[in-house]
Amino acid sequence: MKTIVICSGGLDSVSLAYKVAQENTLTALLSFDYGQRHVKEVEYAAASATRLGVPHRIVDIRQIGAALSGSALTDDVAVPDGHYAEETMKVTIVPNRNAIMLAVAFGMAAAQKANAVAAAMHGGDHFIYPDCRPGFMNAFQAMQDAALDGVAQVRLHTPYIDGSKADIVADGARHGVPFAETWSCYKGGQIHCGRCGTCVERREAFYLADVADPTEYDDPDYWLAALAERGA
Amino acid sequence: MKTIVICSGGLDSVSLAYKVAQENTLTALLSFDYGQRHVKEVEYAAASATRLGVPHRIVDIRQIGAALSGSALTDDVAVPDGHYAEETMKVTIVPNRNAIMLAVAFGMAAAQKANAVAAAMHGGDHFIYPDCRPGFMNAFQAMQDAALDGVAQVRLHTPYIDGSKADIVADGARHGVPFAETWSCYKGGQIHCGRCGTCVERREAFYLADVADPTEYDDPDYWLAALAERGA
Repeated sequence: MKTIVICSGGLDSVSLAYKVAQENTLTALLSFDYGQRHVKEVEYAAASATRLGVPHRIVDIRQIGAALSGSALTDDVAVPDGHYAEETMKVTIVPNRNAIMLAVAFGMAAAQKANAVAAAMHGGDHFIYPDCRPGFMNAFQAMQDAALDGVAQVRLHTPYIDGSKADIVADGARHGVPFAETWSCYKGGQIHCGRCGTCVERREAFYLADVADPTEYDDPDYWLAALAERGA
Repeated sequence: MKTIVICSGGLDSVSLAYKVAQENTLTALLSFDYGQRHVKEVEYAAASATRLGVPHRIVDIRQIGAALSGSALTDDVAVPDGHYAEETMKVTIVPNRNAIMLAVAFGMAAAQKANAVAAAMHGGDHFIYPDCRPGFMNAFQAMQDAALDGVAQVRLHTPYIDGSKADIVADGARHGVPFAETWSCYKGGQIHCGRCGTCVERREAFYLADVADPTEYDDPDYWLAALAERGA
């Protein structure tokens, strides 16, 4: 199955790229520039494509991002510290981002005669992001089946959709993912901050998967304090 | 119902804008720059927004268009003459364009707290474009309901979906649309060529609706010859 992987350069999507490269036919990595605070993440995606020997495409949707204002990912609003579970993280939602990115990826797959688009949404995102849930994925596939009827057949491949981020770390370890060469932090530092939502989630996932975390954090113990605060 | 109208500057979508302005609450016109051969069409959309007293937004998806290569609308392939019904017009399909544009429009509606996105797909497009059919519209609405669950409620409004282009001309005439200030031609001339698929379709729609066509065509009688050739 010729598959395009949507890859941000983060832990989840780089793990997915390695999985697809070993289990299917990886044809390209596709990244989106939606006005992230830094380009470091996309550089990690480019490096992953080089290591996997496939083309890397970056689609610039910054102007769309500007039109869809109101998100901490692209605006001047401060990124809140802490775990995704906290209500304050809702500020990071870009309305309809997954529908937009998946629709672009399906268009690219149809044009390039690929059979599948793979995306790394996982179970840990379900409770806060509606466009990361299985119901959305099924509805999206049905929409694309109608949109491309007679033109192309493209499957949405989301192997992590019912798993946790810890499951992705375990799966990535099995596929030899160089985790140190993936980027999660929402802040634009030289190394991972260790305090933002994605850093806390990343650190916790390695712990739960019982996989050594090679990531260098500016504040490596913050996640434990955040965990204790949540009463877990 | 606060409604954003996707408006290319063509006859169909300008008619839709006038309809929505009179029957609902028009909040903005949204155009896409996807690397059309000329910007004339988008200028007509801007002029329509000015006349209707609403903001006009242009979202540049040219880079996406470049990634989705293979279409006569954006490439150097010659635009075929004749009616859309002819098989040769399939070259004008941009894979997944409607899904992409609607997803962006829904994101904008969610961000701006609009209740609806209106789009001018009509029955005449069904047989060749799968992403203009009612089945696609229903599937798209279901996808967006899932994607925006708990975030926003946005309806897809497609009042022309079961009508013909002639029905749009008749409806536009009722709403006082200045048809001469709309653009259909796929070629980049000073006036409508009268020979390309959209020109033939436009001329025929005025004829069938029994509405005077104020459009100046370079070849005003070509549509009749095309009609005769099809044996109609």
